[in-house]
Amino acid sequence: MDKRTSTFERVESDVRSYSRSFPRLFDRAQGASIYDHNGKGYTDFLSGCSSLNYGHNDPDLKQALIEYVSGDGIAHGLDMFTDAKEQFLAAFERVILRPREMDYRVQFTGPTGANAVEAALKLARKVTGRQNVIAFTNGFHGVTLGALAATGNGKHRGGAATPLTGVSRAAFDGYFGENVDTADMLDQQLSDPSSGIDAPAAIIVETVQGEGGLNAASPEWLRRIEAIARKHGALFIIDDIQAGCGRTGGFFSFDGMGLSPDIITMAKSLSGMGLPLAVTLLRPEHDIWSPAEHNGTFRGNNHAFVTARAALEKFWADDEFAKQIAGNAAYLKQRLERIAGEAGLSLRGRGMMMGINMGSGEAAAAVCKSCFQNGLIIETSGSHDEIVKVLAPLNIPRDEFAAGLDTLEAAVATEMRHTRIAAE
Amino acid sequence: MDKRTSTFERVESDVRSYSRSFPRLFDRAQGASIYDHNGKGYTDFLSGCSSLNYGHNDPDLKQALIEYVSGDGIAHGLDMFTDAKEQFLAAFERVILRPREMDYRVQFTGPTGANAVEAALKLARKVTGRQNVIAFTNGFHGVTLGALAATGNGKHRGGAATPLTGVSRAAFDGYFGENVDTADMLDQQLSDPSSGIDAPAAIIVETVQGEGGLNAASPEWLRRIEAIARKHGALFIIDDIQAGCGRTGGFFSFDGMGLSPDIITMAKSLSGMGLPLAVTLLRPEHDIWSPAEHNGTFRGNNHAFVTARAALEKFWADDEFAKQIAGNAAYLKQRLERIAGEAGLSLRGRGMMMGINMGSGEAAAAVCKSCFQNGLIIETSGSHDEIVKVLAPLNIPRDEFAAGLDTLEAAVATEMRHTRIAAE
Amino acid sequence: MDKRTSTFERVESDVRSYSRSFPRLFDRAQGASIYDHNGKGYTDFLSGCSSLNYGHNDPDLKQALIEYVSGDGIAHGLDMFTDAKEQFLAAFERVILRPREMDYRVQFTGPTGANAVEAALKLARKVTGRQNVIAFTNGFHGVTLGALAATGNGKHRGGAATPLTGVSRAAFDGYFGENVDTADMLDQQLSDPSSGIDAPAAIIVETVQGEGGLNAASPEWLRRIEAIARKHGALFIIDDIQAGCGRTGGFFSFDGMGLSPDIITMAKSLSGMGLPLAVTLLRPEHDIWSPAEHNGTFRGNNHAFVTARAALEKFWADDEFAKQIAGNAAYLKQRLERIAGEAGLSLRGRGMMMGINMGSGEAAAAVCKSCFQNGLIIETSGSHDEIVKVLAPLNIPRDEFAAGLDTLEAAVATEMRHTRIAAE
Amino acid sequence: MDKRTSTFERVESDVRSYSRSFPRLFDRAQGASIYDHNGKGYTDFLSGCSSLNYGHNDPDLKQALIEYVSGDGIAHGLDMFTDAKEQFLAAFERVILRPREMDYRVQFTGPTGANAVEAALKLARKVTGRQNVIAFTNGFHGVTLGALAATGNGKHRGGAATPLTGVSRAAFDGYFGENVDTADMLDQQLSDPSSGIDAPAAIIVETVQGEGGLNAASPEWLRRIEAIARKHGALFIIDDIQAGCGRTGGFFSFDGMGLSPDIITMAKSLSGMGLPLAVTLLRPEHDIWSPAEHNGTFRGNNHAFVTARAALEKFWADDEFAKQIAGNAAYLKQRLERIAGEAGLSLRGRGMMMGINMGSGEAAAAVCKSCFQNGLIIETSGSHDEIVKVLAPLNIPRDEFAAGLDTLEAAVATEMRHTRIAAE
Repeated sequence: MDKRTSTFERVESDVRSYSRSFPRLFDRAQGASIYDHNGKGYTDFLSGCSSLNYGHNDPDLKQALIEYVSGDGIAHGLDMFTDAKEQFLAAFERVILRPREMDYRVQFTGPTGANAVEAALKLARKVTGRQNVIAFTNGFHGVTLGALAATGNGKHRGGAATPLTGVSRAAFDGYFGENVDTADMLDQQLSDPSSGIDAPAAIIVETVQGEGGLNAASPEWLRRIEAIARKHGALFIIDDIQAGCGRTGGFFSFDGMGLSPDIITMAKSLSGMGLPLAVTLLRPEHDIWSPAEHNGTFRGNNHAFVTARAALEKFWADDEFAKQIAGNAAYLKQRLERIAGEAGLSLRGRGMMMGINMGSGEAAAAVCKSCFQNGLIIETSGSHDEIVKVLAPLNIPRDEFAAGLDTLEAAVATEMRHTRIAAE
Repeated sequence: MDKRTSTFERVESDVRSYSRSFPRLFDRAQGASIYDHNGKGYTDFLSGCSSLNYGHNDPDLKQALIEYVSGDGIAHGLDMFTDAKEQFLAAFERVILRPREMDYRVQFTGPTGANAVEAALKLARKVTGRQNVIAFTNGFHGVTLGALAATGNGKHRGGAATPLTGVSRAAFDGYFGENVDTADMLDQQLSDPSSGIDAPAAIIVETVQGEGGLNAASPEWLRRIEAIARKHGALFIIDDIQAGCGRTGGFFSFDGMGLSPDIITMAKSLSGMGLPLAVTLLRPEHDIWSPAEHNGTFRGNNHAFVTARAALEKFWADDEFAKQIAGNAAYLKQRLERIAGEAGLSLRGRGMMMGINMGSGEAAAAVCKSCFQNGLIIETSGSHDEIVKVLAPLNIPRDEFAAGLDTLEAAVATEMRHTRIAAE
Repeated sequence: MDKRTSTFERVESDVRSYSRSFPRLFDRAQGASIYDHNGKGYTDFLSGCSSLNYGHNDPDLKQALIEYVSGDGIAHGLDMFTDAKEQFLAAFERVILRPREMDYRVQFTGPTGANAVEAALKLARKVTGRQNVIAFTNGFHGVTLGALAATGNGKHRGGAATPLTGVSRAAFDGYFGENVDTADMLDQQLSDPSSGIDAPAAIIVETVQGEGGLNAASPEWLRRIEAIARKHGALFIIDDIQAGCGRTGGFFSFDGMGLSPDIITMAKSLSGMGLPLAVTLLRPEHDIWSPAEHNGTFRGNNHAFVTARAALEKFWADDEFAKQIAGNAAYLKQRLERIAGEAGLSLRGRGMMMGINMGSGEAAAAVCKSCFQNGLIIETSGSHDEIVKVLAPLNIPRDEFAAGLDTLEAAVATEMRHTRIAAE
Repeated sequence: MDKRTSTFERVESDVRSYSRSFPRLFDRAQGASIYDHNGKGYTDFLSGCSSLNYGHNDPDLKQALIEYVSGDGIAHGLDMFTDAKEQFLAAFERVILRPREMDYRVQFTGPTGANAVEAALKLARKVTGRQNVIAFTNGFHGVTLGALAATGNGKHRGGAATPLTGVSRAAFDGYFGENVDTADMLDQQLSDPSSGIDAPAAIIVETVQGEGGLNAASPEWLRRIEAIARKHGALFIIDDIQAGCGRTGGFFSFDGMGLSPDIITMAKSLSGMGLPLAVTLLRPEHDIWSPAEHNGTFRGNNHAFVTARAALEKFWADDEFAKQIAGNAAYLKQRLERIAGEAGLSLRGRGMMMGINMGSGEAAAAVCKSCFQNGLIIETSGSHDEIVKVLAPLNIPRDEFAAGLDTLEAAVATEMRHTRIAAE
């Protein structure tokens, strides 16, 4: 450890985590590359856990921000009307909502995904007058107390050090294997007045569970869940914080699936540049908040409005970017199938949100460590951290993508060789 | 309403609030002034609810940010080691902690004050193995479910639409009048094994209740509360989110009071420029988090690290700024005493966080409305929104400060005249 | 309504329920018969919901009680040592525990089943330091707040009018059909650190769900649940309040199944004569209560100790009574199979705790109503009250049993005929 | 320990408590006397914690019960209409309600005080749609989870081993000394929308806190609390379980105080003979229970109905018994004043529910131990078990009462002498 990184040891809490996997001091990043202070570059297959879907410091977003700051644009605006917010809202309406014939209002919550989830759950309880919420096995919705109750991860739940309440757990698509229809199970329980599952205010679901192991729900299952929510008087909430903003192909992870969630939460890549921004989208008929009933100091992060608007207009005004994602996703799938196939492993996920199930957290960690030594930043996911998860920028140039995947391929092969040797 | 503001009506949730008091489209801000898109300037006595203590777009902070962005500095870094974070931590240690002989670690939580409070409460429960928390009447600690349980405000609590648990309420300093010692009351209850108040994990307190009505606790009372926490095995948490960063005079609102909180939460003006940033300071012996046990996507907001470091170095490296605050605070107090005295009203608060108790929410609203019509942005606080609260930039030039206070003085005088006429 | 029953309309709460099904004023009861104040007798297939397993006013129990009262035996003894309590404990040890090589301590809780369950859940949480409890679909454990959280019935849960916490719901044996192994499902969820089901303090189960529809768990499934509890560090609690005391054949409903619950709750027929009495049996190594930590004024109901002791000695000192139950149960099964078979209906339950699934609550209610008109008291059970439940005294003479079942048979036949006609 | 008491050591849970203070095997009791199995008699100043207000085995009650049992009267009736229940209800209406012009309905809950409290709190939440309940410092309302949340005692609360929710704590009359008006404090907090005390469904109070230290609220304070409940839309609940049934003079502890509680809970001495019985009295307009929404197997304890009816008719049909209580209470007060006065101690309580504050639990325990050695059963109360509590039968003959008080007087004098010697 050098003098610089010793600062962290001395002054930062032990709660830090990613810095343990990638113990370098980074100072600069562009596109799919991130550089340490010795100038060494790394390909970034982590992308801020899907917060940097357009890569680091996209030149157009960066330019828009610099101009805004240079012109004394408002940085912090509470929830006042600002030019930057109006432009973001207008672009969001024009580029995202109208083409999809979606009628939603935008609530700017505190700029974290967890805060957007907290707002969603509070609103669902207000609207329905009910208090129970259905969340799924392996779901991840944040670590503030209301969102944490919906999160499945035991380490995070344990951090509360007090019981988490108000959530009943249901099994995600495929949780009990291919032959068990978990949607039917949920419907049965909600239809049974003595099941012990109280009538829910909401069902909250990720279409692909980013932290939970890249479990991708089928469109059919998601439609069933929405129908079950409607049947039982619950709001249907899609938490699109990690899977949205193009990560699985469309702007929403459920584009084209025929779903009409009552509430959608977004954050991570929404600002386009990794700046804190979170929104809760809600149908107008559910917009029964009283003014400031859910508030937060940084709900008017205008820098993020500027880059978010620029990102919407650059990437989502036409189909080009979606086609690029589709191309990259197809390439990713082909490469991962080969890597996994050779090793007898299985794939997980969908779109540009795929990974390899290494079978154990130890094996996955070894792969990631080997990758890092070879200039690739990549992380794990899943109940046992057993999934090596590729979260490359969506617009990563093909050659960089290929090189990164080559590194991954080699690391997996090495790990499988070690495993075989150990087994013999 | 013009075409631009109609966007908000159409697309933004009705939860918005400040835009109702100040229905203009703002686009630019500098120092103590904020401008609408017609070019009309307003003096800002709201300062992002104390998030803009150094005014809007301080030129040095702005310059640092532009340079950082221009050089492709990392924007989003999860909790990896970055140059910007290291510089912030080193500056915080050098400028803030060491001169005060304070030994704390910095936890970067999700970048909202509520998130910092959630982390604080979770940690206190982990450390003590207890689940109850003592919070005070009229306290405000955020609106996510864990923090909201500690918040006193009924409107915000009602937003949860489900019971809030894990917090027992105690009376703040002076809540029951000057002759009732609320610290003694708390000690009696915690000393009585049958009081029904469970042994607490923590006592969380604001030194000045920013949202609760500018109630300022005396140093003696705060020392009593800290001693009571120690006596009963609880951690002592100061929520310095609104009162900290110079608002009451020193960097911490409790500087010089002889207090040693176990945990300190900070946010709002910490980044110096209104960018989202929040930290939980904790003593090393309590740093028992496992890696990522409390996490969040935007806990590495590097733009905020850059401006926060610049703010620390510009304003807190020597005593000059504190002296400027003291001067402005003295001037504010003198002016408010005159305004209040003439009208037979009382003052509230401390330092640059003072206000006038107008006696009713209606009167306070009328004063704020009149101020806005005359180019001054100012808001209310308190159980009944009855306090007109002056939160000017700490470094506001004296002439602008005076002009703003002139506007306030005239508005109060007008309101009192109306009240007298109505009473006659 | 006559003058006597009008008293109830005027002075008793509308919460009363059974009196709505059987609107007569009853005054006397003996064996399997209960008489209204006009002297009309009814055969009792309800038996106080299994609280009168030995019939009404068994002559030996009655005589023992009269002698005790006549001799100024202590009626109310708090939890002091009394002769009656000692004799009960000694008999329980000698007649019940020792022959089964069971090593348990007896906790006298408040004399209701719910109170015994509350004590069981509290103790499990104390012993394990965990707070979550696993309870099953359609389970019934009482309606005080702690027990109610474990109860599945929606009407009772709704009565709380506040969220019920601390319990996760699992699916009972067969809940999702014969092909779904619900024990495997529970094991999978408890083994998955991200399932969102917190590590449990206890798993609480009824071997036959008396209120939930006479669902009988298989011995294999129960052994699996016990093994899962052990594997995951949870206590295994059998709630034997309704199914115990001979109702399914043995004194415990799980006799001979190879189970070793950590905690057993008993009430209902324990006193033998319907007097309030409840106990929580616990293994010595878990007996970590401090004195009076769970208390209650009527935990020393000595009249009940007297009759309970007499019942133990009369019915359980040798095998005769168990043989009688087995004979009656075989007869019941044969009769119900014929009744159900002719009507194309299915049976539920086990031992002397069996019933017919009428397919709907309406049909079941019609059957019960018809029975009552013909002198038979019988009630329903199940999520939709669709099960007609036979809870005759275990020692009912064969001719009375036969006559009652004749009445039931006729009522079912009539109802099925009506249903067919309506369908045509 | 002899053979008989060793049964308890071996088979009964360590949770037992009173048997530790009075380690004898008791077998018979009559009036104010209780006898061990060696024939030694003890005067009972504990009276089953106020469950035996008419003494042990009152001859008329006993006779009524024997006749009832002998005639095969129904013992267990669920909540069916029975002759015994009708007679009790009619007597309760005639003897208790009508003379007081009280219009209440009687809900028979499970036969424990805690169960009556659970029903009361559930109903208050149902009626108001609110979830918070105000309970007082040192209050005792039972140990099932819903009631326990309202109980102040830390040992009992700790027994839950999980957080207790839904209750805010207020200070009882005089809790903060004579000069602090705790009713004003509560009113201020409920009137302040930011106090952090949510609008309550109910305020539950004991007029004299039996377990909490014989703290007697003044009629004025109780009227203030009732008015505060009305003002803030909460139901006013008096828990009269320990203080009712004549213990403080009238049938209700609040007779003649001008109070009109919405709900009253009763248990303990209601059956007159110590048999388990509990009721929740509620105003007809609040009787919104659905059938069986709150139920319980033993809510039809007909033996208790028989003795309860007999007790009402014997003791409450005219004024004689109330006069007898008044006479005994005056005598008790005079004696205790002398005992306490000589020792420089203070009195607590009201009516036949008075005690001496010994200043410490050790001193109080020593007094009780000495009394027991001299044939007097008496126990302690209070936060630190520092109050020696006299709960003699209300109709104790004067000579027995005097003898018991002589024993107490001697024990106090001895203890004070020891204390003085130790201090010197």
